Amino acid sequence: MDIAQLRDKILKQDRRALARAITLVESAREDHRHQASHLLETLRGAGKQALRIGLSGTPGVGKSTFIESFGMMLTAQGLRVAVLAVDPSSARSGGSILGDKTRMDRLSRDPNAYIRPSPSQTHLGGVARRTREAVALCEAAGFDVVLIETVGVGQSETVVAEMSDLFLLLLAPAGGDELQGVKRGIMEMADIILVNKADGDLKSAAMRTCADYSGALRLLRKRPQDPQGYPKAMTVSALQENGLETAWQDMQTLIEWRRETGHWAGRRTQQAQYWFHEEVRQGVLALLEQGDARAALDRLETSVAKGEITPAAAADQVLAVLNIRAD
Amino acid sequence: MDIAQLRDKILKQDRRALARAITLVESAREDHRHQASHLLETLRGAGKQALRIGLSGTPGVGKSTFIESFGMMLTAQGLRVAVLAVDPSSARSGGSILGDKTRMDRLSRDPNAYIRPSPSQTHLGGVARRTREAVALCEAAGFDVVLIETVGVGQSETVVAEMSDLFLLLLAPAGGDELQGVKRGIMEMADIILVNKADGDLKSAAMRTCADYSGALRLLRKRPQDPQGYPKAMTVSALQENGLETAWQDMQTLIEWRRETGHWAGRRTQQAQYWFHEEVRQGVLALLEQGDARAALDRLETSVAKGEITPAAAADQVLAVLNIRAD
Repeated sequence: MDIAQLRDKILKQDRRALARAITLVESAREDHRHQASHLLETLRGAGKQALRIGLSGTPGVGKSTFIESFGMMLTAQGLRVAVLAVDPSSARSGGSILGDKTRMDRLSRDPNAYIRPSPSQTHLGGVARRTREAVALCEAAGFDVVLIETVGVGQSETVVAEMSDLFLLLLAPAGGDELQGVKRGIMEMADIILVNKADGDLKSAAMRTCADYSGALRLLRKRPQDPQGYPKAMTVSALQENGLETAWQDMQTLIEWRRETGHWAGRRTQQAQYWFHEEVRQGVLALLEQGDARAALDRLETSVAKGEITPAAAADQVLAVLNIRAD
Repeated sequence: MDIAQLRDKILKQDRRALARAITLVESAREDHRHQASHLLETLRGAGKQALRIGLSGTPGVGKSTFIESFGMMLTAQGLRVAVLAVDPSSARSGGSILGDKTRMDRLSRDPNAYIRPSPSQTHLGGVARRTREAVALCEAAGFDVVLIETVGVGQSETVVAEMSDLFLLLLAPAGGDELQGVKRGIMEMADIILVNKADGDLKSAAMRTCADYSGALRLLRKRPQDPQGYPKAMTVSALQENGLETAWQDMQTLIEWRRETGHWAGRRTQQAQYWFHEEVRQGVLALLEQGDARAALDRLETSVAKGEITPAAAADQVLAVLNIRAD
């Protein structure tokens, strides 16, 4: 593959070149990895800084409808929108949350939108790196907004939040016993909570749910990167396309404040450092997957569970297998 | 030191032997570590399973007053109570949160109570292991309740929660803009939130704060290890010794339910496995502290922050220094 040519086409916003490049970064083949690294290196600093929006929501909250309505609103304003997905379950299920483009029929036919199905990957570490690389390629291809969707399996929200400028949590209305629905830790990552389906019979339930989450958000310690009033909860109806303009304005207010105060750049720098350390950690911890260490881990985990050995003594034995001296 | 003799004295609930044994597990000297391991091995399964209660609260919420009142109530019921502390800041500050026993004057003179100041340690990993070992020694010495206190610096709540059967979060009343006080992630670890200082002028503020947290807790996904109504928030006055009996009853209800459903034993097993894996991880990651790796990390972190290299390419370079092949 001619990397220089691919680079030029991406910078000219050629969609087929972008698709080919994303396929390249998704490949696990060693020669592809080298080409991908080279391509990303030649593209570093090129293109534009898109607004990276992370979006989490469990199945049933209307995520596809929201992305379609929200995306169409943005493209109608002349913005170019890319949609990516982090779906660590796709390797197991064989499917992919964005594989079925009919979910977003209008948006997928919009020339200013680019929807990329999630790749099938075996581990989240790989998914994270490849998604970050796909985001970088979309930025090189001049997209204004990159939406990164996740269904929230395992640690995938953290992965998405750590590569986004803005993190949205989409919820459905709920009442009484139906509450208790938010996975621990997510509420605290959200910059804006959107209670969807604020239409028809569910409208008042959506408003109550929104008030509940507004109250809960007020109990959290204020983050230095937030202006007054953030994080916030609000209602939208993706179906009726209500509240999307207001939500977009609130996102822009937050982002403009962060740009002016330096928190935008600071966050991007922190994220780059996070991923650097995370990739180093994952690389080092991969030592534990080697034959002898893996066998010792499995054997001793059982002994620890049975109370036959203390966790500390068992850990020392595993480290001894790796010739690492315990403290 | 005669380990067999020390063991026998601990099992006979000799307080001086317990104190000597805790000093032994706190020592970083290699011969002491060996003796400590041997002692813990000979004590494994002896004594009783105490109720391990983790307690977090920022300075000013009345933590010492609560521990004293709550502890005195328990000893008045004939229970033997040990108080330990996880204070990762003590190494830096030179002090220790439990060093000043005058904070708990009555409890420290109670023959059924044992208060142990936090050791000065340099890193949280070491603090965690030594605190777990001190807990095991207190159980061997027949204590019924082990209270593990933390001020909540850095990751210390996670450390305490992962060695407790029950995790309490102590809060002070707050109103309006004073809210936003809870560190992200803690609310989600708490089994019971206690809003202290529900007395005098602060009583109504305490009740409002309690209602706010009750509402917020209902928004979290239900945990399988919780019966109906948990996690819960309630008001107490440690100063006036109000609400402590009710809080203790609610703790016992929760713990009895967990014992009957097997979640108590399951949680202890999971915690042992957590600490096993955590110690292995920390041991492996210590490779990064070695000279060449440390230097590469520091140098490349700066380059990543400046945008001179991608996080992935930088990580590959660090792993190359350690002769670890990147994926």
